[in-house]
Amino acid sequence: MDFDKALDGALRRLHDEGRYRTFIDIARERGQFPHATWHRPDGTERPVTVWCGNDYLGMGQHPAVLAAMHEAIDAVGAGSGGTRNISGTTVYHKRLESELADLHGKEAALLFTSAYIANDATLSTLPRLFPGLIIYSDELNHASMIEGIRRNGGAKRIFRHNDVEHLRELMAADDPAAPKLIAFESVYSMDGDFGPIAALCDVAEEFGALTYLDEVHAVGMYGPRGGGVAERDRLTHRIDIVNGTLGKAIGVHGGYIAASAKMVDAIRSYAPGFIFTTSLPPAVAAGAATSVAWLKAHPEIRDQHQTQARILKTRLRGLGLPIIDHGSHIVPLIVGDPKHTKLLSDMLLDQHGIYVQPINFPTVPRGTERLRFTPSPVHGPREIDALVHALDALWSRCALNRQELAG
Amino acid sequence: MDFDKALDGALRRLHDEGRYRTFIDIARERGQFPHATWHRPDGTERPVTVWCGNDYLGMGQHPAVLAAMHEAIDAVGAGSGGTRNISGTTVYHKRLESELADLHGKEAALLFTSAYIANDATLSTLPRLFPGLIIYSDELNHASMIEGIRRNGGAKRIFRHNDVEHLRELMAADDPAAPKLIAFESVYSMDGDFGPIAALCDVAEEFGALTYLDEVHAVGMYGPRGGGVAERDRLTHRIDIVNGTLGKAIGVHGGYIAASAKMVDAIRSYAPGFIFTTSLPPAVAAGAATSVAWLKAHPEIRDQHQTQARILKTRLRGLGLPIIDHGSHIVPLIVGDPKHTKLLSDMLLDQHGIYVQPINFPTVPRGTERLRFTPSPVHGPREIDALVHALDALWSRCALNRQELAG
Repeated sequence: MDFDKALDGALRRLHDEGRYRTFIDIARERGQFPHATWHRPDGTERPVTVWCGNDYLGMGQHPAVLAAMHEAIDAVGAGSGGTRNISGTTVYHKRLESELADLHGKEAALLFTSAYIANDATLSTLPRLFPGLIIYSDELNHASMIEGIRRNGGAKRIFRHNDVEHLRELMAADDPAAPKLIAFESVYSMDGDFGPIAALCDVAEEFGALTYLDEVHAVGMYGPRGGGVAERDRLTHRIDIVNGTLGKAIGVHGGYIAASAKMVDAIRSYAPGFIFTTSLPPAVAAGAATSVAWLKAHPEIRDQHQTQARILKTRLRGLGLPIIDHGSHIVPLIVGDPKHTKLLSDMLLDQHGIYVQPINFPTVPRGTERLRFTPSPVHGPREIDALVHALDALWSRCALNRQELAG
Repeated sequence: MDFDKALDGALRRLHDEGRYRTFIDIARERGQFPHATWHRPDGTERPVTVWCGNDYLGMGQHPAVLAAMHEAIDAVGAGSGGTRNISGTTVYHKRLESELADLHGKEAALLFTSAYIANDATLSTLPRLFPGLIIYSDELNHASMIEGIRRNGGAKRIFRHNDVEHLRELMAADDPAAPKLIAFESVYSMDGDFGPIAALCDVAEEFGALTYLDEVHAVGMYGPRGGGVAERDRLTHRIDIVNGTLGKAIGVHGGYIAASAKMVDAIRSYAPGFIFTTSLPPAVAAGAATSVAWLKAHPEIRDQHQTQARILKTRLRGLGLPIIDHGSHIVPLIVGDPKHTKLLSDMLLDQHGIYVQPINFPTVPRGTERLRFTPSPVHGPREIDALVHALDALWSRCALNRQELAG
């Protein structure tokens, strides 16, 4: 095989479909979020406002979080120096696991190097613990869940997005004696819609299934103490395994699961993706623990977050722009074509200093390409004004549809 | 299914086989490596010396590395706030990728959140880029390579450890037209032996195969600039894809591959484990870039490292202790039984303040359970003396074999 030619072909396909991704080099300014500096490929710089980050609450610049990181670096150095089992467990890791277990009202939590690997490693290990396990997975679950469920070739069923009746049909068709697990998310990040957690828990109970809930786009942001949508809806006790991230609203890095002590102990002992990898740097664990603890005590930041999202949605809707609104903090604006989406994103960046990445297939279905805005408590009236005016101008200039596309 | 009972069974198996892992809570003291504080489960503390870390050169406490991390935190905050494509690319990430590409004499490098996921994501994506790809994998390859190779059910052949003739037989038996890749390591971490890189490259050339080399236990430590064993042996140009870690000798966190620009672009564009995950914190990238740059310019630390390893091996061999010596920096001491290994480890910790984790199945084959020492430039004569005396005393007290076991 001509390897070079094969690579050319693989890359050409992306260019042809207008979905070749170019990374924009952005350095946010600590203390000035969401303001940042865009480093252009030609070496020049320009100030921009980040409108597509996942540091949903601006915790990545919180003085207490940064102080905790500085202190840990000065106390124990840069990296952990080993896997969790071989010299890589510190008080910082244990403190963070306690904070997270408490956040979700579970007996235990387990850190992974990312929420991606937490999903992948946990979901691929469960069939080893429960032989014959069938995993029922929402069709819009995140790539990391899909990868984990597929990994070891275990039995799986895909149910239509948020379709509880379809799930019930699939479960009823399977052997009642087979162990079962339902995997779903609380907030689906691309449309910003919520999973029907209570109804899914009802079905799980009916069939004696475990529940696995990915709260990465909700942790820190929903619930009285930031425990996620399950906490907000008082459903925590009905979830067997929660997956969360420390890299979005918590503002730092890494991922985790929270569950019963026994479940965590078994995953800890059997998951290669947990066992055979260097643990998170102590400073990352320290910063995340401080962030989680702070968020538990400050519900007002969650209110501000929701308020900012409501204001932005109201104003965009007022202009007839085709946003999707499911009542969450995520504001997707549908363009419906990969090349137009890229063009709008480029014009916003070049002409308005507004950074929002185009979202194309395979992240979203073809024909629903979009700009996806993530307002936060650090996006004030000035930033919202600038965004709304820029979008209004571009929409007119490009003669894009208004309203008709709104779902 | 009674899920609780199944978990009990899974955990009981580990206890029965003496390979249930208890994490030891260790906080190293920045500036005092390898000295650390052991936080006992009962809340008390005692000073210990870490003898099993993978921060092989002590770079995790290097002032320049820590300063770079502090500066990045103050400049841009804690986390990156997004995936590489969606607001998570910064100058720090790009600078580090340049350093790494240069380190390995490649056109490009690509960061992952760990070397585990770098292996897993890359090896599972290559069959998508090269349909029909057959991967030939050394039987002792790391878990992350095995997981990546198995993931998508692509064709694979396992060759006996370091057995070039066996590899050639397997390759000769396959369709000459099928695309092929040979995956192996430069230093196998559990025995500390080297892969026959040149001979494997010869076979690759003979069959037109790609070469994939995992250098995680060599990067920073071998070669004039720390480029690994391939650099030391002037074989860099014969390796298509290098995998490395930033969490061992570099002293920080994360992993990467280095390869041609085209190969990196394709992996970047197609690997879910790269695309759908939050990028490394800028401070981690900053610290790692500083560490890599420093190591390029300081070959003397690599000489010190090898000297310390030679001294320890000479002294342990002088006492007739059954070490394995393949000329690398890793010093395994074979005990051959999981329960004895655990007991020795516990006695070293409790009675001598020496922390070395027992290594049991599945990390090593049953019957070869061991203590694995990682001497470094920060382990001075005092630390080596204390270790040698402690091992001598324990070996006598437990009436363990001397010499006979030496391989």
